Amino acid sequence: MSGLTALFVPASIAVLGVSRNPAKLGYRLLQNVKEGGFGGAIHPVNPSGESILGLPTVPSIDALPDAVDLALVSLPAPAVPDAIKALAARRVRAAVILSSGFGEVDDDGRATQRDLLATARAAGLRLVGPNCMGVYSAPVSLNGTYFWDLPRAAGGISIVSQSGAYGGLIFRHLGGRGLGVARFVSIGNQVDVEIAEVLEWLVDDPATTLIACFVEALRDGARFLEAAGRATGRKPIVMLKGGRSDAGRRAAGSHTGSLAGAWEVYCAACASARVVLAEETEEFFDAIETLVTVPTRRPAAPAVAVVTVSGGPSVIAADTAEREGLHVPALSNATREALRAVLPPFAAVGNPVDLTPQVEPAQIAKAVRRVLDEATIGGVVAVNVGLDIPEFADGVVAAARDTGKPAVAFTADAPQITARFRAGGVPVLPSPERAVRAWRALWRARPPAPRLDLRAPSLSPESR
Amino acid sequence: MSGLTALFVPASIAVLGVSRNPAKLGYRLLQNVKEGGFGGAIHPVNPSGESILGLPTVPSIDALPDAVDLALVSLPAPAVPDAIKALAARRVRAAVILSSGFGEVDDDGRATQRDLLATARAAGLRLVGPNCMGVYSAPVSLNGTYFWDLPRAAGGISIVSQSGAYGGLIFRHLGGRGLGVARFVSIGNQVDVEIAEVLEWLVDDPATTLIACFVEALRDGARFLEAAGRATGRKPIVMLKGGRSDAGRRAAGSHTGSLAGAWEVYCAACASARVVLAEETEEFFDAIETLVTVPTRRPAAPAVAVVTVSGGPSVIAADTAEREGLHVPALSNATREALRAVLPPFAAVGNPVDLTPQVEPAQIAKAVRRVLDEATIGGVVAVNVGLDIPEFADGVVAAARDTGKPAVAFTADAPQITARFRAGGVPVLPSPERAVRAWRALWRARPPAPRLDLRAPSLSPESR
Repeated sequence: MSGLTALFVPASIAVLGVSRNPAKLGYRLLQNVKEGGFGGAIHPVNPSGESILGLPTVPSIDALPDAVDLALVSLPAPAVPDAIKALAARRVRAAVILSSGFGEVDDDGRATQRDLLATARAAGLRLVGPNCMGVYSAPVSLNGTYFWDLPRAAGGISIVSQSGAYGGLIFRHLGGRGLGVARFVSIGNQVDVEIAEVLEWLVDDPATTLIACFVEALRDGARFLEAAGRATGRKPIVMLKGGRSDAGRRAAGSHTGSLAGAWEVYCAACASARVVLAEETEEFFDAIETLVTVPTRRPAAPAVAVVTVSGGPSVIAADTAEREGLHVPALSNATREALRAVLPPFAAVGNPVDLTPQVEPAQIAKAVRRVLDEATIGGVVAVNVGLDIPEFADGVVAAARDTGKPAVAFTADAPQITARFRAGGVPVLPSPERAVRAWRALWRARPPAPRLDLRAPSLSPESR
Repeated sequence: MSGLTALFVPASIAVLGVSRNPAKLGYRLLQNVKEGGFGGAIHPVNPSGESILGLPTVPSIDALPDAVDLALVSLPAPAVPDAIKALAARRVRAAVILSSGFGEVDDDGRATQRDLLATARAAGLRLVGPNCMGVYSAPVSLNGTYFWDLPRAAGGISIVSQSGAYGGLIFRHLGGRGLGVARFVSIGNQVDVEIAEVLEWLVDDPATTLIACFVEALRDGARFLEAAGRATGRKPIVMLKGGRSDAGRRAAGSHTGSLAGAWEVYCAACASARVVLAEETEEFFDAIETLVTVPTRRPAAPAVAVVTVSGGPSVIAADTAEREGLHVPALSNATREALRAVLPPFAAVGNPVDLTPQVEPAQIAKAVRRVLDEATIGGVVAVNVGLDIPEFADGVVAAARDTGKPAVAFTADAPQITARFRAGGVPVLPSPERAVRAWRALWRARPPAPRLDLRAPSLSPESR
């Protein structure tokens, strides 16, 4: 069993730093493990040897049974080094150090971290943290975190976060959208296990269908990109990156200095590896939701049609697409003529296509299908404010399905349409701008182009 | 009475195109007028002469009483020209043409609009629209729109929108945030009354404390900026502009061609007139909410302190501030030392200031006050994910009040803090990025710098 398998799929757990005081984090942690429903052996360690939360405790680490897979460490920082030594001696496979007060504080803390790592390496013990929020793994019903309000829905989203607070935000947002988490790990100071290694494990994890990362500093960018490349086209990776500005790096405690252009390098590398790099927090969650909702359809071109009954918001959607690197190409004359034949005389058929509120509902499906049949168009952003007729959603859903081109929607005051979009697998976002960026996430997650084979027959003299 | 006073403060109204069929827009419009509680005379016009919705109707426009202030016109487009002629003959002061099917359709429609305008000008009748959603005016309980779900709260936000759909979005967003609208007008094709003139009226309107505009094309930019300049520093103006890209202009039906750099010109002109130009829909509503919640405090410098207990989100807040044209300056050594004296040893005192979850609650007020006392700092963005202690909110609220510097917050999983911020006049936004941009809206709405007077004594030879 690899160290990360011991982390995410342990058969047995030790919990260090448990307390009978419900106000203490160690109590919360044990309660979370128990109430999470973990089915393997749970060994709380407490010198008293008494039961806590109905679980018998083990009086010391030395008294743990053989072959414990994972230890959750919620001890005061000064007690951690001896605990790690004892865990190493007991041949525990992995330890998550939730405790704070190490490398994020000062040089002494960084020295302590180096000692912890040396101890662990010598014994084949893998370390997560310190200064983190723990590990969650739905397939084994493990909540080894300080969070008590986790999403109830099942799902394939796995998360690696360098920030504990972002861990909380992620659970809150995904839960609020009814999305389910497979694995979560907060990696804190990354003394041993770092983001790229977690990514490697998740890429091969059958329970994981999408990987979301909150990153402040990648320790090994090349390894991250290589793992991302392996996932490309089958398992989307969405990333939010903190520490882009001088002030942000100062806050992230990253003392690498200001690398001019570093953000542009990140963007280019992520684009090439098809990592969906979000600019903002809400864009990050929107991209996750969209890629989970539309797991396979990807645009073949960064050109979007905007189909609407609502003028102003479709103008804003078109503006956003052009500003954010997508195209909103004018439709061909043939398509325009076909649209004119089925739409009211004052409908706009250029792109955005404004069906207008006076559209004959029975004609909507035909019109949207005609737009998506246009070869240059990679997919559609549907915009509807307040004309709540089911034909609008049905037409978009059918055209997207039949053409294999993806659709994303912005709706307001249209509850029927919103519900039908959701039922039809069309993500619904709360503003025109966010809908356009969510569509762009689908484009960014597309499979890579096949590499040119220089020996290919098409490069024979005749075809040059 | 000016035409716009007749529009917003009519004593009597005629409603044209009313119907006994509740499915018709004309029925909805009369219902809205009646249920809105308008206290003046209401004259529905219907050839039957029977009562509709309990209101006696007038059989024709010619039969209207003298001195009707405002007519709401919801007739089919072909019936509008004769109606406007008849209204002009009856010396009605203003007409809102809600009907569609004019200049937004084709050249015939534009010719009809020119005729409407000539008729109206000759009689001193002001026209709003056509192709609009109507007028709302809280001080006279007038809902002369097709919208039936309007904000219930009283408030001083007045809105002029070129898009009907954005009108609906504005009511929905403001209502959802508990904010109240004073006046609203949807101006559609702007055949006569255009944005700048409405702005002029609202700048002098005592019921209006903030003006929000959704604009696709300004017909008279110089007049708009002059009116905005008059409002500057006492009545914020927030603008969202559609039609920035080629595709957006195509959708907006603006055939002015692509003016390279036009957006940059808008930005510069708005910055100079202190119009808060929002980049995006949610930023627009966030700016309105923030400027209403913080009506007077304005940053003296575009430099913000980020105060937090949550590392990751504060990193993102700092990144956003630097990216969006604000500064997050490092604090002075004196301030850092003062902070170190009251904060845990591993707190970050650079800026962002991370108090850490281990902060002594009683010290928070002192620390935040010390940060805001720093001369270079224009205000604070407070970030709190999940450490729900009242001292955090109380400290920020008190420091902002005592120093006169504005605070904006991002909170999550901290309901007590969120409530105390709101009670203390601190806007709470749903992401770190949106909190930073909301703070920037306060900076953008600051009073203009005093103009240099070249004859001033300070420019006497001695002081050169």
